[in-house]
Amino acid sequence: MSQYTEFEPKNMIFKRLGPSGLRVPIFSLGGWLTLGGTVKGDPVKDILKAAFEAGINMFDTAEGYAAGQSEIEMGRVIKELKWRRTDLIITTKIFFGTRSGPNDKGLSRKHIVEGLNESLERLQLDYVDVVFAHRMDKTTPMEEIVRAFNHVIDQGKAFYWATSEWSAREIEEAHGIAARLGLIAPIAEQCQHNLFHRQRPEVEYSELYQKYNYGTTVFSALASGLLTGKYNNGIPSGSRFENHADFFKKTIDSLNVEEGQKKIAKVKALTEYAEKELGCSVTHLSLAWVAKQPQTGTVILGASRPEQVLDNLKALEVLPKLTPEVMKKIAEIVDTDPTPESTWGR
Amino acid sequence: MSQYTEFEPKNMIFKRLGPSGLRVPIFSLGGWLTLGGTVKGDPVKDILKAAFEAGINMFDTAEGYAAGQSEIEMGRVIKELKWRRTDLIITTKIFFGTRSGPNDKGLSRKHIVEGLNESLERLQLDYVDVVFAHRMDKTTPMEEIVRAFNHVIDQGKAFYWATSEWSAREIEEAHGIAARLGLIAPIAEQCQHNLFHRQRPEVEYSELYQKYNYGTTVFSALASGLLTGKYNNGIPSGSRFENHADFFKKTIDSLNVEEGQKKIAKVKALTEYAEKELGCSVTHLSLAWVAKQPQTGTVILGASRPEQVLDNLKALEVLPKLTPEVMKKIAEIVDTDPTPESTWGR
Amino acid sequence: MSQYTEFEPKNMIFKRLGPSGLRVPIFSLGGWLTLGGTVKGDPVKDILKAAFEAGINMFDTAEGYAAGQSEIEMGRVIKELKWRRTDLIITTKIFFGTRSGPNDKGLSRKHIVEGLNESLERLQLDYVDVVFAHRMDKTTPMEEIVRAFNHVIDQGKAFYWATSEWSAREIEEAHGIAARLGLIAPIAEQCQHNLFHRQRPEVEYSELYQKYNYGTTVFSALASGLLTGKYNNGIPSGSRFENHADFFKKTIDSLNVEEGQKKIAKVKALTEYAEKELGCSVTHLSLAWVAKQPQTGTVILGASRPEQVLDNLKALEVLPKLTPEVMKKIAEIVDTDPTPESTWGR
Amino acid sequence: MSQYTEFEPKNMIFKRLGPSGLRVPIFSLGGWLTLGGTVKGDPVKDILKAAFEAGINMFDTAEGYAAGQSEIEMGRVIKELKWRRTDLIITTKIFFGTRSGPNDKGLSRKHIVEGLNESLERLQLDYVDVVFAHRMDKTTPMEEIVRAFNHVIDQGKAFYWATSEWSAREIEEAHGIAARLGLIAPIAEQCQHNLFHRQRPEVEYSELYQKYNYGTTVFSALASGLLTGKYNNGIPSGSRFENHADFFKKTIDSLNVEEGQKKIAKVKALTEYAEKELGCSVTHLSLAWVAKQPQTGTVILGASRPEQVLDNLKALEVLPKLTPEVMKKIAEIVDTDPTPESTWGR
Repeated sequence: MSQYTEFEPKNMIFKRLGPSGLRVPIFSLGGWLTLGGTVKGDPVKDILKAAFEAGINMFDTAEGYAAGQSEIEMGRVIKELKWRRTDLIITTKIFFGTRSGPNDKGLSRKHIVEGLNESLERLQLDYVDVVFAHRMDKTTPMEEIVRAFNHVIDQGKAFYWATSEWSAREIEEAHGIAARLGLIAPIAEQCQHNLFHRQRPEVEYSELYQKYNYGTTVFSALASGLLTGKYNNGIPSGSRFENHADFFKKTIDSLNVEEGQKKIAKVKALTEYAEKELGCSVTHLSLAWVAKQPQTGTVILGASRPEQVLDNLKALEVLPKLTPEVMKKIAEIVDTDPTPESTWGR
Repeated sequence: MSQYTEFEPKNMIFKRLGPSGLRVPIFSLGGWLTLGGTVKGDPVKDILKAAFEAGINMFDTAEGYAAGQSEIEMGRVIKELKWRRTDLIITTKIFFGTRSGPNDKGLSRKHIVEGLNESLERLQLDYVDVVFAHRMDKTTPMEEIVRAFNHVIDQGKAFYWATSEWSAREIEEAHGIAARLGLIAPIAEQCQHNLFHRQRPEVEYSELYQKYNYGTTVFSALASGLLTGKYNNGIPSGSRFENHADFFKKTIDSLNVEEGQKKIAKVKALTEYAEKELGCSVTHLSLAWVAKQPQTGTVILGASRPEQVLDNLKALEVLPKLTPEVMKKIAEIVDTDPTPESTWGR
Repeated sequence: MSQYTEFEPKNMIFKRLGPSGLRVPIFSLGGWLTLGGTVKGDPVKDILKAAFEAGINMFDTAEGYAAGQSEIEMGRVIKELKWRRTDLIITTKIFFGTRSGPNDKGLSRKHIVEGLNESLERLQLDYVDVVFAHRMDKTTPMEEIVRAFNHVIDQGKAFYWATSEWSAREIEEAHGIAARLGLIAPIAEQCQHNLFHRQRPEVEYSELYQKYNYGTTVFSALASGLLTGKYNNGIPSGSRFENHADFFKKTIDSLNVEEGQKKIAKVKALTEYAEKELGCSVTHLSLAWVAKQPQTGTVILGASRPEQVLDNLKALEVLPKLTPEVMKKIAEIVDTDPTPESTWGR
Repeated sequence: MSQYTEFEPKNMIFKRLGPSGLRVPIFSLGGWLTLGGTVKGDPVKDILKAAFEAGINMFDTAEGYAAGQSEIEMGRVIKELKWRRTDLIITTKIFFGTRSGPNDKGLSRKHIVEGLNESLERLQLDYVDVVFAHRMDKTTPMEEIVRAFNHVIDQGKAFYWATSEWSAREIEEAHGIAARLGLIAPIAEQCQHNLFHRQRPEVEYSELYQKYNYGTTVFSALASGLLTGKYNNGIPSGSRFENHADFFKKTIDSLNVEEGQKKIAKVKALTEYAEKELGCSVTHLSLAWVAKQPQTGTVILGASRPEQVLDNLKALEVLPKLTPEVMKKIAEIVDTDPTPESTWGR
């Protein structure tokens, strides 16, 4: 088996993803916007190679990222770098098909099966490790959705299935149907989670963590960059907000109003705390804070250059510093503790 | 069987409650705060008698209302007025037991069974028509809750069970478990719904209406009286807010800040519209608006005097006036249309 | 146990009702229109007594027959005649409640339970042998209906449940739900069946007989008297058509048009065949013909006088004469063989 | 992926088929009698190409159409025209096998599996989107049928299964068994539906639409051409009735008797209304009327020439004109409103 490149986990931390037996690295790499989009060809290979060598063996993509190009670039690189399939965790997402036909979107059995087949073709793989429903499709009965994901698992095209941007009720419905029919339930939710976005991941989903040990694969852990401090003094040239001004318009606009200004003030305070008290950047503190949440399986990093990946991984060194006292202090600074569901007795 | 008082539905409208075959009057009478609480003895009888004679044959109570006194008063009156049991729809709620022992609250099998037994004893009845879980109890497994309500139904102590103030996820979980185990699912949610409180009943629950034909039994249709206009110029003497100043503190305080003042301005505008364009009071318009919602099974009225019940029922005359155009106009005036769940394809 | 009147089956034939183990007499007595309606008091006792002594131990009634009076009269007579409960088969039907309240009709759980309780009270019995759904109620979910009939069976208030005037699809739905939930399915259909009404009982229900061994309890075996020949020359005084002219208006009117005249011609031809070839009346031949059908559990007779019952039972003597050849000849005379469902391969 | 012909939906309307997530065009193309039968070779390609370019991406065939030739021709054309599989919806039907062996017909597990395998071979496809049971087979237990269709779905040879010319009771039985065994239920019925054939699709199936959201794929929307007006003055040369005189004998004969003459008179009246009031042909009005029915997923068109398909699609322009008032007027002209099931309470 010497034809393969060896994977060495280095100081990466691995956790089980949700209730499954699958071990995922606490930091992984995602293809959203960058890979196959703003970054193409050899630079993609450089980024993935750097990540892999730093202990990141999980790569997340979607049929809809850069209209399929993300999967194509990723598939090509995986092949060229001679990585062993067993060393890798590859995840993709089905919903936003690459074309505009009437059955090219959503979660019909037809699109789940055909969409994943085409994803695998682009990735040049026989299977992915986890296939996500990229959104909920309210026009398809949940039973059809649960059955279709089980079908592709039965056919060996994925090991697990998961959700993204589903409501707690929808995830609950999927679990109820899976339990009733003796089928496989989803194992994790790919959701936004960061110090400024906490209600849904920490409150709405909380019962799912407790009952099903539901996991998360987190995106936007830096609040689209806000938590790096780079927007503290406006939008710098070459930043994600500049490159995708239309996509992020709402967020960018919000920075100029009172609410946004308050957030920036908090980032500044957190920066001071991170640098002075913990000896780390606000970026690394913010990433480590998400990684520290019990249900977090992996924090998906985005990167346009290899160095970005390597820099982000310094968050691994911050993790041991997040004692209960430090976590409490962070909570006080950002003051974003979500309102728990009003309840009784617990 | 001439020993019974005849029930005559008059001009009352009856609807099926959720997916069940049970017919409930679109307006019913609730015991919260008043019956057994601020009102006792003969006046309770006067109120119930007036309601019954006006076509209201559904009475809602709870083990926790006035620490059991609501059920006691209601049970006594039902007996004294010689109403036929089959003519009545009696609903009670289990959760907030009348005493303070460790097992006197919540939804353990022990408390559901014991609590309902004690309710029936106070009501002097063999069964209620619908037994509600007055809140969700997160400390009891949902399977225990679903099984316990099925148990009391199997024992003939209730015909149906329902929920109150549960989240959509919780109701979904109960349905999933009931379907898996072949048990009876809850049929309706007793929730707050009025022109100022719409997000939960209209958005959070919307899929439950569509999938399960879930129904509602609505309380606070007048927003604790706000929609009667009586707080337009402060809190009048003898009002619910004055009588229960502690309980309503939060609401009362809110009236003095900007948000509350905006609401009062809307009530004033709605009052003008109701009186000038529809020839009715803002109270009757507000009640009819809730009754008009497709999933509403019944709007539970509260009353301290017989005349209040009779006055409220004038809302029945407003119902036929609620054309799509009028509903649209009301929506514009109050400007409280809730944000729908972001979704695709529907 | 000498306090009881002995039941002697005489020459009565007993058959299992549908798939059940219950033995019913091939002719039974029904209360529709007569008992408690046109006949009251002692004459009711005379009729039931004559029937019982002639081998008829099955009596059929309904909550809706004569607004409850049928059950009251029947219950009184059963008590007075000191019949042993185990000797009797008592059937009633729930749907058309005796009063006009919003929950006094249909098949809601509330009305099935309350309706049967009141029926048992009127009958002065602890249980009936079979409780029928007197009609289908499309406003109540089938699962609620199946569960409610199982509930009253579980409570010991009936041994079996059955249907009346349901479509094959509805009976199929009830069976599907009962099988899925592990509940008791209905065992028989109370339907109209006679030489002039054959499509539904012989074709629509045919698969139900084959798959579930579904049985029938037949009413109107004489086509409202048409097959007795008594309307051959107009409507005689004192006949059912005269007594209930409004109820039977449609049927009466039909006799005057071409279709009705054709039927009367057939009755005349059948009369000649019965008298000349089989030595029996057309009435007895028609009754025996229905009793001969494999799925017929019992043919429900109606009677205003004891002698009518005894006369009808002469059909028992015709039964052995109904050889395949005779059945073929009858089919030729009435020419009403129904069109089978178009199908393949059988 | 530029090797594929692009599909452009044009002004086609897409609807979900029954409860499924599959989007089908409101008009589709069927192979019955024509494709592979009266039309072979290049003309088949011309017809399919014209349809596809006009927005029709759904093609319906059956193993029994032209003894397999329909599937062979269709499969060849699909390949030659380089259509993307995901753009297409291909449906076939199993029952009437292409040969005469004892197991070449019906719905045994053997024939469902073997028949579909041979269909796929003829179509040169890995799977169809929907496989229909072309008739009910009463000689095979329903459980075997439901299991066999689930088996081919599990094997990836179809996404959905459906029925054709089944009774409501049979579809109900299939649903009951599927629910009990946790299997996939059929999603739609391929049935005849037109202004002269309404009882079964509108009444017999109505509960299935309500309970299961059952869909239809309609054939004979023009009543074998009667609703085009072309038989108003006898049978024209080259028409389907002339070409298939034996097959349509019963229909042709019916035109000469009173009932047929009445129908032709109605077609004439409808023609006048269509042309004068709506500015469209009776053909387009009749097609649009079927497409307008809520449960209709697709109306299957038949065509011998490309121009026929294109002409039929003018019905799309009529659809928006079918206001409630126009629908009411059409109902009055044809006077074929079916008798609803007698029922209570709805």
